Amino acid sequence: MGLFEKHQSILENAVKAMHERTFHAQYPEHPSPKIYGETADEEGRKKFQSMIGKRFEELKQGDSQNWIGVEESPYMQDPLNISYPSFSVDDLIEKAGSTFHQWRKVSAAERAGILIESLERVKDRFFEIAYATMHTTGQGYMMAFQASGPHAADRALEAVAAGYEELNRFPGTAMWDKPMGKFNIQLDKEWRAIPKGVAVVIGCSTFPTWNTVPGLYASLVTGNSVVVKPHPGAVLPIAIIVAEIQNVLSDEGLDPNICQLAVDTFDSTITKELVEHQAVKIIDYTGNSAFGDYLEGLQGKAVFTEKTGVNSAIIDSVKDVDKVAANLAFSVSLYSGQMCTAPQNFYVPKDGIKTADGHVSFDEFAQKFVDNINGLMDNPKAGPFVLGTIQNKNTCDRIDAAEEIQGKVWLKSRAIENPMFQNARIATPVVVEVDASNEEAYNQELFGPIALLIKTENTDHSIELAKNMALRHGALSCGAYTTDDTTRERIADEMSLAATPVSFNLVGGIYLNQHATFSDFHVTGGNPAGNASFTNPEYVIKRFTWVGFREPVQG
Amino acid sequence: MGLFEKHQSILENAVKAMHERTFHAQYPEHPSPKIYGETADEEGRKKFQSMIGKRFEELKQGDSQNWIGVEESPYMQDPLNISYPSFSVDDLIEKAGSTFHQWRKVSAAERAGILIESLERVKDRFFEIAYATMHTTGQGYMMAFQASGPHAADRALEAVAAGYEELNRFPGTAMWDKPMGKFNIQLDKEWRAIPKGVAVVIGCSTFPTWNTVPGLYASLVTGNSVVVKPHPGAVLPIAIIVAEIQNVLSDEGLDPNICQLAVDTFDSTITKELVEHQAVKIIDYTGNSAFGDYLEGLQGKAVFTEKTGVNSAIIDSVKDVDKVAANLAFSVSLYSGQMCTAPQNFYVPKDGIKTADGHVSFDEFAQKFVDNINGLMDNPKAGPFVLGTIQNKNTCDRIDAAEEIQGKVWLKSRAIENPMFQNARIATPVVVEVDASNEEAYNQELFGPIALLIKTENTDHSIELAKNMALRHGALSCGAYTTDDTTRERIADEMSLAATPVSFNLVGGIYLNQHATFSDFHVTGGNPAGNASFTNPEYVIKRFTWVGFREPVQG
Repeated sequence: MGLFEKHQSILENAVKAMHERTFHAQYPEHPSPKIYGETADEEGRKKFQSMIGKRFEELKQGDSQNWIGVEESPYMQDPLNISYPSFSVDDLIEKAGSTFHQWRKVSAAERAGILIESLERVKDRFFEIAYATMHTTGQGYMMAFQASGPHAADRALEAVAAGYEELNRFPGTAMWDKPMGKFNIQLDKEWRAIPKGVAVVIGCSTFPTWNTVPGLYASLVTGNSVVVKPHPGAVLPIAIIVAEIQNVLSDEGLDPNICQLAVDTFDSTITKELVEHQAVKIIDYTGNSAFGDYLEGLQGKAVFTEKTGVNSAIIDSVKDVDKVAANLAFSVSLYSGQMCTAPQNFYVPKDGIKTADGHVSFDEFAQKFVDNINGLMDNPKAGPFVLGTIQNKNTCDRIDAAEEIQGKVWLKSRAIENPMFQNARIATPVVVEVDASNEEAYNQELFGPIALLIKTENTDHSIELAKNMALRHGALSCGAYTTDDTTRERIADEMSLAATPVSFNLVGGIYLNQHATFSDFHVTGGNPAGNASFTNPEYVIKRFTWVGFREPVQG
Repeated sequence: MGLFEKHQSILENAVKAMHERTFHAQYPEHPSPKIYGETADEEGRKKFQSMIGKRFEELKQGDSQNWIGVEESPYMQDPLNISYPSFSVDDLIEKAGSTFHQWRKVSAAERAGILIESLERVKDRFFEIAYATMHTTGQGYMMAFQASGPHAADRALEAVAAGYEELNRFPGTAMWDKPMGKFNIQLDKEWRAIPKGVAVVIGCSTFPTWNTVPGLYASLVTGNSVVVKPHPGAVLPIAIIVAEIQNVLSDEGLDPNICQLAVDTFDSTITKELVEHQAVKIIDYTGNSAFGDYLEGLQGKAVFTEKTGVNSAIIDSVKDVDKVAANLAFSVSLYSGQMCTAPQNFYVPKDGIKTADGHVSFDEFAQKFVDNINGLMDNPKAGPFVLGTIQNKNTCDRIDAAEEIQGKVWLKSRAIENPMFQNARIATPVVVEVDASNEEAYNQELFGPIALLIKTENTDHSIELAKNMALRHGALSCGAYTTDDTTRERIADEMSLAATPVSFNLVGGIYLNQHATFSDFHVTGGNPAGNASFTNPEYVIKRFTWVGFREPVQG
């Protein structure tokens, strides 16, 4: 039985789920011993620890003269001293160019089977990937497991499903039979989905697998060879996945260099040389807007970006203000606001908001928000684990700067203790009240645990600001709280024109930061926060070209 | 009964046809009295003649101070003196911006119904459009009828079908029901396809409706307002279609400015001002590569181009060399080589080709090709009608220059008589033999009735040249003749890597220039000849954005 047949039901269920868009998960998100085995966690942790200070020898990319690696753990604030083989751009491109011709001739079904097999093998390494993610991104354990493991694998599977569906969207062959009156013209026609060529996927430091695998698997399923260029600070999680892809390719008698890892360092980055190479036809990218804009400007390449955005929460009216404050406090605290979907600008009318229990003033709302953050931070069983750590030292500077913004500082950032890592880089959220007129304070992404309470004239004013911010600076998410149907529709309609998804009235254990695979499109592609969307049809279609052939039917 | 219900079966059949890709035509291509009525042709001709020298008063775009028009008939070499209302770019954009908000709120089904209704009404004006096309583009009567009438309407319908399908690709709503162990998280989700905004469609001088309506109808069905900017030399055919769209919009109580016509003149073009306007989010374009490249470089806009290409015919081996020569002679003569799909470079091995009746030398093949062109030209019942006329005087200069190319001139261009139009601008094909080493002679599009017989080392050499030409300069079509299966596959594979469709071994009444709606993708989007394809899913998807909303299910 081939890998396609082996995994056909997984693939078909994924395609179905993508169209139904209700809950579906191929890979369970809970790190439960019942699901993943009693010893899986412990073994994963030991495996990760055994990698520290060593060469990562799992790749099948041939010998390298040079071993490099600059990862540091934000929990230990120490280098991991893991090194990876380094290759020149010419070498990477040459291999990608030649393996492309092998890979493009593998059928779409076989490619899908191979890729799902790689995910099934990655599943056995979810815990190891989780610890690798913690100690590169600084995420808390639970997020590191979920985001880099099952959620990433589901996003990869979604890309495979979307690609597989598009590749089968039109018939491989058909007989064109045109009546001409006394006779028919008959042509045998054939259509082939021709992959574009060599693809490059550029990873980020905060979500090294979740943000990388959609583009990686989308390019692979559509027949392109791929070079994965991880962020120098977060290599190991995606290196494990690339190694497993290479293992399956190798087992199937294919060249593992169909998917290569290209590691570099902060001092000697290869990204521009790589993406500007004329052989590179597809680029996936997650990162800052300046570099993303440069990539989008490269001519003759299909470029998929997720850049920065300024996410909003619009507070109009609520049923239960305490539940709302608790929900939003969690949203800004989760991974110290280092999610691309974390809310930053909270628009609250100066006259306060309506609640089921009466009017709540701006200050009362601010106090409840702050109290809930403090409550979460001061709960030793929750605070440190929700926060994780700060991935990049520069974020700490940004937090300091936020406390200097003109306005009332409702909550200063502070350090709390992580019981397991005494040296962890930790900063709790800072909350600053800003007047709506002080637009310079809030018209940019302040990446990290920074929340701005923006005092507006009224909800119409809030909507206008949130919409304009998204149109001009991008947005990946918006939270909105309103008990009024007309206001709800106005928010939905106006934010839709800024191509920003809206989560309404979230309370309890669901947060506006979370985008579910097979259901939520992540990034819409319609505002400056990015030109791509996980996973709409455009995300896979642009990776190949339909080419037709025809010939008269032989009589 | 609404227009959607009225035309639902047309729409559903079109969607089905798009996926089956065998022959389908909603609008019969033959200008037969039995189909279109005994008096339709005569009435259409009279209607066209009555328009000459007058204002085109059919548009519902409000009063204009200024009436302009510079069309000339290549058959009469006289101005038509038809004038159209002129509007400032600001005025056009303001109306498009406000009507957008009306149009985007019309459901996808209703929009499809309205657009198909417009095509049904256009059908009643096919003959009038045919004469308008003849006397602006210079096409022969039959092509003018087919290309501007039924074939264009089918391409428009195809775009409507593709857009309608994509808009319904995902559910409007779904309940997301995630098991959390002891309870479920349930969210009501909603997805909306949000149109991008204002679209501009830039027409060309040779196929003013066929190349304009796909982008026009694709943008409209996906909810965008559209400004049609025709080529100053070919306005009337598309003006009639815009007028009919405006009629249906008006009848449905909608603002006719949802679709506007923006006429300009050679001396005072508005195209750049229009497309650079920040409100314009979508651009469709057919024309030269320089302007197309400029458009593709505009940031933040979805741009769809069909530019120039260098089309090839690869001659390796044939069954019946006379049938092949006849077929290719027709291909270069049809509308005087002014089709974007017309072959230009004929790659023939210096040692000649194999045929079922023995070997044919290069010179023998050249002579048969030339003889067939002469035979066609000198047939008074065929020649003038196949050729039509030369749309643009510059093409005549290009023909003169071709006769100066280094190499043997096998056939000089000459004038033949059109029995109905003594003053018609006519030029028969020029055929020049060029050595493969003289790449400068053939590495660009020589628009018009110009055929180059390129003497190559062998078929591998021919394939290499055809592929490289397509990769570097673009190609929309390729004809190939081979009786060898291995060679056939090599041609298909190599040309597929240059994203060029190949027609194999065409003889008889089917030509490589012809791309059939619902079956042949026109332009692949994968080489420099254009970045778009009629009509693949990408062609419609990029005109809107999926935006999601979600909210906890009310308990």
